[in-house]
Amino acid sequence: MRGKTGVWLVGACGNVGMLTIVGARAIARGLAGRTGLVTELREFRELGWPGIDQLVFGGHETGARTLYEAARDFSRRAGVISESLLRDLKDELETIQDEICAGYPAPPVHTLKGRRADPVGPRATVRAIAKDIDEFRTRHGLQEVVVVNVATTEAHPAPCPEWESLTALRRALDDDRGNVFPTSMLYAYAALDAGDSYVNFTPSVGASVPALDELARARGSVYAGRDGKTGETLVKTALAPLFAHRNLRVHAWEGYNMLGNPDGAALRDPATKGAKTDSKDRSLRSILGEQAGHSSVHIDFVPSLDDWKVAFDYIHFEGFLGAKMAMQFTWQGCDSALAAPLVIDLARLAAYSSSQNESGALSHLACFFKDPAGVDVHAFSEQFEMLRAYVRQALSRARSA
Amino acid sequence: MRGKTGVWLVGACGNVGMLTIVGARAIARGLAGRTGLVTELREFRELGWPGIDQLVFGGHETGARTLYEAARDFSRRAGVISESLLRDLKDELETIQDEICAGYPAPPVHTLKGRRADPVGPRATVRAIAKDIDEFRTRHGLQEVVVVNVATTEAHPAPCPEWESLTALRRALDDDRGNVFPTSMLYAYAALDAGDSYVNFTPSVGASVPALDELARARGSVYAGRDGKTGETLVKTALAPLFAHRNLRVHAWEGYNMLGNPDGAALRDPATKGAKTDSKDRSLRSILGEQAGHSSVHIDFVPSLDDWKVAFDYIHFEGFLGAKMAMQFTWQGCDSALAAPLVIDLARLAAYSSSQNESGALSHLACFFKDPAGVDVHAFSEQFEMLRAYVRQALSRARSA
Amino acid sequence: MRGKTGVWLVGACGNVGMLTIVGARAIARGLAGRTGLVTELREFRELGWPGIDQLVFGGHETGARTLYEAARDFSRRAGVISESLLRDLKDELETIQDEICAGYPAPPVHTLKGRRADPVGPRATVRAIAKDIDEFRTRHGLQEVVVVNVATTEAHPAPCPEWESLTALRRALDDDRGNVFPTSMLYAYAALDAGDSYVNFTPSVGASVPALDELARARGSVYAGRDGKTGETLVKTALAPLFAHRNLRVHAWEGYNMLGNPDGAALRDPATKGAKTDSKDRSLRSILGEQAGHSSVHIDFVPSLDDWKVAFDYIHFEGFLGAKMAMQFTWQGCDSALAAPLVIDLARLAAYSSSQNESGALSHLACFFKDPAGVDVHAFSEQFEMLRAYVRQALSRARSA
Amino acid sequence: MRGKTGVWLVGACGNVGMLTIVGARAIARGLAGRTGLVTELREFRELGWPGIDQLVFGGHETGARTLYEAARDFSRRAGVISESLLRDLKDELETIQDEICAGYPAPPVHTLKGRRADPVGPRATVRAIAKDIDEFRTRHGLQEVVVVNVATTEAHPAPCPEWESLTALRRALDDDRGNVFPTSMLYAYAALDAGDSYVNFTPSVGASVPALDELARARGSVYAGRDGKTGETLVKTALAPLFAHRNLRVHAWEGYNMLGNPDGAALRDPATKGAKTDSKDRSLRSILGEQAGHSSVHIDFVPSLDDWKVAFDYIHFEGFLGAKMAMQFTWQGCDSALAAPLVIDLARLAAYSSSQNESGALSHLACFFKDPAGVDVHAFSEQFEMLRAYVRQALSRARSA
Repeated sequence: MRGKTGVWLVGACGNVGMLTIVGARAIARGLAGRTGLVTELREFRELGWPGIDQLVFGGHETGARTLYEAARDFSRRAGVISESLLRDLKDELETIQDEICAGYPAPPVHTLKGRRADPVGPRATVRAIAKDIDEFRTRHGLQEVVVVNVATTEAHPAPCPEWESLTALRRALDDDRGNVFPTSMLYAYAALDAGDSYVNFTPSVGASVPALDELARARGSVYAGRDGKTGETLVKTALAPLFAHRNLRVHAWEGYNMLGNPDGAALRDPATKGAKTDSKDRSLRSILGEQAGHSSVHIDFVPSLDDWKVAFDYIHFEGFLGAKMAMQFTWQGCDSALAAPLVIDLARLAAYSSSQNESGALSHLACFFKDPAGVDVHAFSEQFEMLRAYVRQALSRARSA
Repeated sequence: MRGKTGVWLVGACGNVGMLTIVGARAIARGLAGRTGLVTELREFRELGWPGIDQLVFGGHETGARTLYEAARDFSRRAGVISESLLRDLKDELETIQDEICAGYPAPPVHTLKGRRADPVGPRATVRAIAKDIDEFRTRHGLQEVVVVNVATTEAHPAPCPEWESLTALRRALDDDRGNVFPTSMLYAYAALDAGDSYVNFTPSVGASVPALDELARARGSVYAGRDGKTGETLVKTALAPLFAHRNLRVHAWEGYNMLGNPDGAALRDPATKGAKTDSKDRSLRSILGEQAGHSSVHIDFVPSLDDWKVAFDYIHFEGFLGAKMAMQFTWQGCDSALAAPLVIDLARLAAYSSSQNESGALSHLACFFKDPAGVDVHAFSEQFEMLRAYVRQALSRARSA
Repeated sequence: MRGKTGVWLVGACGNVGMLTIVGARAIARGLAGRTGLVTELREFRELGWPGIDQLVFGGHETGARTLYEAARDFSRRAGVISESLLRDLKDELETIQDEICAGYPAPPVHTLKGRRADPVGPRATVRAIAKDIDEFRTRHGLQEVVVVNVATTEAHPAPCPEWESLTALRRALDDDRGNVFPTSMLYAYAALDAGDSYVNFTPSVGASVPALDELARARGSVYAGRDGKTGETLVKTALAPLFAHRNLRVHAWEGYNMLGNPDGAALRDPATKGAKTDSKDRSLRSILGEQAGHSSVHIDFVPSLDDWKVAFDYIHFEGFLGAKMAMQFTWQGCDSALAAPLVIDLARLAAYSSSQNESGALSHLACFFKDPAGVDVHAFSEQFEMLRAYVRQALSRARSA
Repeated sequence: MRGKTGVWLVGACGNVGMLTIVGARAIARGLAGRTGLVTELREFRELGWPGIDQLVFGGHETGARTLYEAARDFSRRAGVISESLLRDLKDELETIQDEICAGYPAPPVHTLKGRRADPVGPRATVRAIAKDIDEFRTRHGLQEVVVVNVATTEAHPAPCPEWESLTALRRALDDDRGNVFPTSMLYAYAALDAGDSYVNFTPSVGASVPALDELARARGSVYAGRDGKTGETLVKTALAPLFAHRNLRVHAWEGYNMLGNPDGAALRDPATKGAKTDSKDRSLRSILGEQAGHSSVHIDFVPSLDDWKVAFDYIHFEGFLGAKMAMQFTWQGCDSALAAPLVIDLARLAAYSSSQNESGALSHLACFFKDPAGVDVHAFSEQFEMLRAYVRQALSRARSA
C-alpha cells in the first residue's frame, strides 16, 4: 500500500491508546522489536500492510492526562516502557498530542467534559466528530483512516428498536433523539458514514447493530469488532475445543479475573461488568455446546496490579466411566501490552481491506475479538484459519496481479 | 459395518488395557455412558463404526495379574471403577481372561516370563504371535482384528539399518537376528503381515520404521501411532498455537509431570524416560518454530498418585515492547481413563479404514498421538480438522453409495 | 476418663454430622485409621481423652434424609466412604438413627418441619431440646454430653441488646420473644443451662454472646467455637504470619472458594454468605495488621464439586525496594472429611475440660476455629502452641496426681 | 549502638551482595522504604540495632564486573532497581568499589583469578583475607565487622576428620593442607579468629563444623548460618506444620524450582545442586516427622527468568478415612530482593550480639536459614518465636539498665 494511513484512537490517552502509539513509534524508530504483532508473522508479512512508519496517529480523549503523562505513569507503575524509551519518545509524544481533540461522552448520560464547548445532541456530536477526523485526514493527506475505539467500556444500554434499520436510525438522528445513541455508536456512525474504517476494541455497542452494518455496506466502509481477545478469553477459546473434541463433559468452568487498571475500576459498576462477563462467557458456551455445564466469569478490581491482569480458571470435567478430573490455569499478563499490538494489526488489516474495496463486517478478523462481527465462530484455531485463508487468497491475488 | 471386530491388546491386563475392556463392556451393557469417546461425537457418530457391543477382546500379557485382579486393584487405588461395576463385570472379565495369552518380551533383552515354553528368536516369536491372533480370529469369526499396543514403554533401542527397507528387515528375520527387533516391532510385524490393523498407543518403536510402512502397503494393512496424546501434551498442543499465532515469544516452557502408575516407575529408567520426554518436547518445538525458547519435560514417579497424573507447566513468554508475562497450568487427570476411550476409538477407526481397503499410515488419526504416523502436524486443532475432513468425506461417500 | 461420653450433633444427618459418626464407628471397629485426629498426635495421645469406642452418638435433624441415606449419597457422589465400609456400617447407622430426634428451626423465621408437633416460641423450644438431650443422657448413663452444632449456617441476624447480659436474655426467654433467639442460640442455651458442653462448628451465633458466656460460667459448663477452620482459612492463618514476620507488605490477598455441597448452596443467600466471608477475612486482617492491603473472600456454588472444595488464593506482595512479587495456592479438599475428625477431637477435648471442672470459653481450642471464643489469636502456630501448653500442663498435673 | 559497623561481603558484586549495598544506601539516603527488613518490625525496631546509615560496606569479589555494572545489569534484566535510583547511586557505588578487594577461590581446586598475585596455600590465604578485613576496619575506625558470605555456592566437599576439632584444624592450617579447607571455610576462619562476626548466607560449609564453633567460642566471636531461607523453603516451613499439627499424612511433597541467575547456572553442577536440595529437603522431613512420605526438590535453570525464581510445590496428602487431597502453590519472587534485606538484618543482629559479648552460634537467628546453626528447629513460626524471645529479653535488659 502506498501513502500514509491514519489511525484515529477514541480514548487516545488511555493505557491501550497510549501504548499503541508508543509501541508503533518505538518500532518505527528501531527502538523496539515486532513481537506481539500478528501482521508480522512470517506467513503474513509479505502482504502489503501499511508500514508501521507510515501510520499517523490522532484521536479523541475525554480525560485530562496528556499522552506523555499517561506514558510516564504507565512506565512507573506497570513497567513495560523503560525510562530511556520514555525519554527518547518524549518530544514525539508531545507533538502527537496536538492531534488529539477533546472527546465526546454520550450527551444524555453524562455531563460533558472537554476543553471546548460541546455540541448538543447526537446530530451535532456526529458532525463534530466527523469534522475532527476530516481535518486530520486533510492535514496529513491520508488515503485511509481507521477509527479504533479503545475507550473505557461504557455502561450497557438497553437495545433500541431504532438500531434495527438504517432508515430508523437516521430518523432518530435527524430528530436528535439522544437516548438512542450510546457514545460509542456516535463515533462508529461518523466513521462509517465518512467511508472510514471502524474497529471496536471494547465491549461497547459501537457498530454492532444492523443499522450500522447497513450504513457500512451503503458507504463502502468496513468495520470489525468487538472486545479485543487478549488474555483469559484467548486461552479459553484455545483450550475449550480440546474438551469438546475429546467428548469430555465440562461440569464447571469458573473464571476469576483480577485487574487494577481503570477498566477494572469501571467494572465495579454492575452494568458495565455485565457487558464484559457476558461476552466472555458466550465464547465458552458457543464452543462447548452440549458439553457445557456450570460456568461463570468474575472480575475483581485489585488496585496493586495496575495494568497487569491475573486470571485464574478452574475447569472441572468428566471423562470415561464418569471419572472426574480437573484443570486449572493462571494467566499473568500486561493487559495493555497484549492489546496494543493488536490495535496496530487491526488498523493495518482494516486499512488493507478498505483499500481492496471491501465493505461491511470483516469476519476474517474474528480471531482478534471476544464477540466477532459477521460470524459466530469462537474457537481460536478456527478463527485463525479464517485469517490465514484471507491472507493466502490476497497473496495469490497479489501475485497474479 | 457388519460382523464382529476383534481388539487384540498387547498388555491386556495393564491399566489401559484393562480399563479399555471394562469400559467397553460397561457401555455395551448399559452400565456406563459414552463420555470420552471421540467416535461418539455428534458429528461423527452417524458413520458406521463397529458397535461397542460388537467388539471382541483378547490379547497378550506378560504379567501375573489377571484382568479381574487388575480391575479390582485399580478400583481400590484409583477409583473410577465403582465396587458395584466391578461386581457386575466380574464373571465377564473372567471369561475374557481365557482370550489372553502369555505375551512375549523381546527375546535377546529379557528372560522370558509366561505360562508356557517361549519361542526362541524373533522368527519363532512372530510366528507364535501370529498364531495366537489367528486362533482368536477363527474362534470368533472376526472380520477385522485391530492389534493395539498398550504395554509398558520399552527401553529406547538404537536404530538399526535393517529398519530402513522391508527387504533388509525380512532378511534379518530370516537370519533370526534378535537385536534388530524390539518386542513392539515383533507384534507390529505379525499384525501387519497378517493383514490386521496395528495401533501403537505407546512411545515404543512398533510400526514406526520405513520397513513396516512398506509391509503395511504391501499387505493392504493399516497402522496408526504412536504414543497416545492424553494429558499434558494434549493441552500443550492446544495452547502452543495461541502463542505462535499471536507472535509471542516463548522464552521457556517447563513441564513437570508426576505420576504413580507402573509407567511412572518404568520412567525411572533413563533410557525409557528419554523416549517419552523426547516425543513430548518434539510436539512443542514443531508448533512454536521460530518462537521456541528453552523447554524441558520432567517426569517423576510419585507413588501415592497411583494412576492419576498431575502435570504442571510454566510458560514464560514475551510480548509487545519486551513485556515478560507468564502462564501456568495444572492438569490432574486419571491417565488410564483418558487413554482407554481413545483405544476404543482407534480400534473402531482402524477397523473402519481397513474395511474401506485403505493401507499404510492412517494420518487422519494424528489427533490421537504425540508423534503421529504419516504426517508432521502437531497442533491439536489442525489434527482434529484432518479427522473431521476424513469423516465428512466418508459420510458423503456413504450417502451417495 | 471413665464411662461413656455423649456426642449430640445438631444437624446429625448433614455431611459433617454423618461423617463424624461414620468415621468414629469405623475407627472404633478397626475399619479405619486415625489420620486427621489431632487428639491422636503422639504428643497428645497419652492424655486420657474419652476412647473413640466410648463415644455415643445422638442428635437433632430437620431434614428428611436418614443417616444411612446421607452416607450412601456421600459415598456415591464424593467418595471417601467406600462401598464396603458403607455395607459394614449399615446396621449400626440404622440403630443410631433411633437416637436422632426431629430438630427445631427458629420458630419465628421458618415454618417448622419435623416428625411431631413443634413447640411454639423459644421457651418451649429450649425446654423441648433439653428434654431430648436429657433422655439421651439417661438412656445411656452418660457422664458427659457434648452438644456440637454442625447444622447448615443460619442467616446472620442483627445483634440484639438482650444478648449482652444473662439477666436480659432470661427475661426475653420468659417473655417468649422469638426474634431475640436465632435457632443456634436456643441449642446453646439448652446445653449450657443443663451443664453440658457446647461446641459451635458453624459461623452461626450459638454461644458467642456475653449472655451465654455468663450462663456457662454460672452453670459450670464449657463452650468452644466458632466456625471450624478446615481449609482455606487454615492455610491462610499458617501462611499470613510469614509475610508479617518478614515485613513484606501484602497489597492484595484475594481468595476464591468453590464448593458444591448444601453449605455452598446456602451461601447463595447474601446474608449467610456475609457471615462466612466476614470470619474468613477477619483472621487475615488480624494477623497482617499494618501490612494488610486489599483483601476479599469469594464463595461460589459449583454443584459438580459436591463435598469437595477448591480454594484459589492470590497474594500480591511487595518486598525490598518496592519489588512486587506474588504467591498463589490452590487447595483441593473434601470439606466434610476435614471437618469430621475435628468434631471428634472437639467432643473429646470439651468432655475432658468439663470433667476437670473448667467453665466458660475453652480458649485453648482456638486452633480449631476461624473465629475463636475467648481469645483474639488467629495465627495457626500460636493457636497450636496454646493447645500444646494446655496438654502439657494437664499431663504434668495427671502425672503428679 | 554507637559507632560504625562494617559489613564485609564475600561476593560483594554478585546480585545479593550488590543489592544489599544498593538497598542499604537507598534507605540511608531516603530513596527507598524499609519493607522487607525484619529488624524494622514494630516489635523489634526499638532495640538499638546499628543504624542503616551507619553501615560501611566492603568485601571480596572474584568476578570481573564492578558493583555499578552489576547494578546496571540487574536493573535492565530483573527490574527492582529503577533507572533513576541507579543514576542517583552511581557515584556512591563507584566509591564503595574501592573497598572491594580481589577475592580468593579455594587454591587447590581452581586456578586463581583476581587482580593481584594470589597467596599460595590456605595459611597464606587466611592471612591475606584477615589483612584485607583488618585494613578495612582501621580505615573506617569500625567497632564491629560482620563478614557475610553471599558468594556463589561452592561444590559440596567430602567431610574431613580435621573439621572435628580446633586443634586438628589448626594443625592442618599450619601444615598448609589445602584440601582440608573449602574456600568458604577460609573466610570463616579469618573472620572468627579476628573476633569478627561471621554469617553464612549460602549452603557452602563456612563455619558449620565443630572446629570453627570451638574457634568462635575461644575468640569470643559469633556466627550464624547457613543458607538463607528466602522463598520456597520459607513457605514450606510455614506450611508443613499445618499438616503435622492436623495429623494429616503427607504422601508426597514435590518441589520444582526454576531460576535464571548465576546460582541457577551453578546448580547445573550436580555436586552443587546436591548441597542445595539436601538442605531444602531436610527442613521438610524435620517438621513432618512421622507424617512425611515421598518428597523431592528439583532445581532447573531457566535463563529468561534472570533473578526471578518460580517455585511450584505439589503436596499430596491423606486425611480422615483415607481421603486423598491436594494442595499446590506457586511462588514468584525476586530472589536477590528477598535475600538482600535479610543480609542487612543479619549484619545488624550479629553486630548487636557481638557488642553484647555473646559468642558461638546465634541460634536465635534460625528463622533466617534453611539449615540453622546451633539448633534443630525448622518450623518457621517456632524459629520466629526464638527471635522474639531474644529481642524481648534484650529490650527488658536494656530498659532495666
